[in-house]
Amino acid sequence: MARYKVILAYDGTHFAGFQRQAEQRSVQQVVETALASLGWQGNSLLAAGRTDQGVHASGQVIAFDLNWRHSQAELQRALNARLPEDVAAVEVQHTWDGFHPRYQATARTYRYHIFCAEFRQPLLERYAWRVHPPADLERMNQACRALPGVHDFAAFGAPHKPGGSTTRQIFWAEWQPEGAGLVFSICGNAFLYHMVRHITARLVEIGQGKAPLEALEVHLADPHGSPVQALAPACGLVLSAVAYAGRDEAPGEED
Amino acid sequence: MARYKVILAYDGTHFAGFQRQAEQRSVQQVVETALASLGWQGNSLLAAGRTDQGVHASGQVIAFDLNWRHSQAELQRALNARLPEDVAAVEVQHTWDGFHPRYQATARTYRYHIFCAEFRQPLLERYAWRVHPPADLERMNQACRALPGVHDFAAFGAPHKPGGSTTRQIFWAEWQPEGAGLVFSICGNAFLYHMVRHITARLVEIGQGKAPLEALEVHLADPHGSPVQALAPACGLVLSAVAYAGRDEAPGEED
Repeated sequence: MARYKVILAYDGTHFAGFQRQAEQRSVQQVVETALASLGWQGNSLLAAGRTDQGVHASGQVIAFDLNWRHSQAELQRALNARLPEDVAAVEVQHTWDGFHPRYQATARTYRYHIFCAEFRQPLLERYAWRVHPPADLERMNQACRALPGVHDFAAFGAPHKPGGSTTRQIFWAEWQPEGAGLVFSICGNAFLYHMVRHITARLVEIGQGKAPLEALEVHLADPHGSPVQALAPACGLVLSAVAYAGRDEAPGEED
Repeated sequence: MARYKVILAYDGTHFAGFQRQAEQRSVQQVVETALASLGWQGNSLLAAGRTDQGVHASGQVIAFDLNWRHSQAELQRALNARLPEDVAAVEVQHTWDGFHPRYQATARTYRYHIFCAEFRQPLLERYAWRVHPPADLERMNQACRALPGVHDFAAFGAPHKPGGSTTRQIFWAEWQPEGAGLVFSICGNAFLYHMVRHITARLVEIGQGKAPLEALEVHLADPHGSPVQALAPACGLVLSAVAYAGRDEAPGEED
């Protein structure tokens, strides 16, 4: 029996979210079903975070214990052959027994895609939020300089456990042009429930001139004042990476 | 009654193709249904080209005659409100009565998206072809310099009408990096059935080192020799623009 770390990518469109739920299709359920067919007998896999309904991932991290007699590459092929088309194991790695993808994560990066257009763009809407009137890139970048640092983000979301801390550390946040649209990247130690989608929605309001440039600062200075109402839709959001400061490999591993 | 030119974008995934077919969902059928609900009484709309099952468009051009008493902008809104989510009217323009989107087109541009990865990438596969082993960008660009000019493309596809000419003129063709993948753009006066998908597949074989650098030249020099077997999948292809040399506006139009 050994512990494996797997990087998962999925299209969240047809999932009720990452976490297993009765009667609904979840990422956790389809991955656990695939693992069970490879002999996995655990109760629940470990994951870096729970993405909401409709949210995508290119770098979700999970871990599980498995009795596997072949190589890591063969485990990756076997898993991908058993997973549905909208989920894939993009990296498989033997790790140490104490590895926990959530507790040991030191940073998470999310990316939020928007495009500015008055009318529907069928080839863009599956993975991006359509914004109209247009949002100004420079103005959003100016506004998001308020984010890095340790702040109380209570105005931007709820803690995952009632009564939990609402303080989080943001390492960097930036908007960049990408293809026909714009992408917002934000990296922090952890995030509150809906936090990225509330921040994105507020930044877009700032970019559209519907909110003042210093709107984020106001929320951060008065975290228990009025909470942000606007919520960017799930389809634009991707959990793109989870980072670990310490070891995430098994000792002496070469494969 | 006036003639309108409309630029259509659609996600081809859930269509049996552009052209109306009994018992199958086609782009033409859903657009004609939307038009009929606005009072259109024609038999068949005019279109620049027929995209195959699963092929997308960001710049398909259609035309129809309609008795419409409001502005072009209102027609665009009304059409978009009646079209399903995977089709949109991205531009609506009053045109002259003799405008025909197919006969008067002077150039068509297609884009084909690939990405190189050993394993499935759920967030990329809807609009791109996954290629493995990787295809070399420089090698494909070197090979596709054979394309511009007037050539007999019989090895790359069949004419739309049996016995029709297989000579076409390519104006330019180029591969470029885009996001996590590569995109092939090709612009020509017109294209044979499956021509872009056969050319792309052959270029990818060249890029992977499975075919010699001069493979395209060999097919163009001997068009009735062995036809290209490889066919790139529909999901990577987008009809991105159709150009008109002459007038495509109604005289004196300002809206």
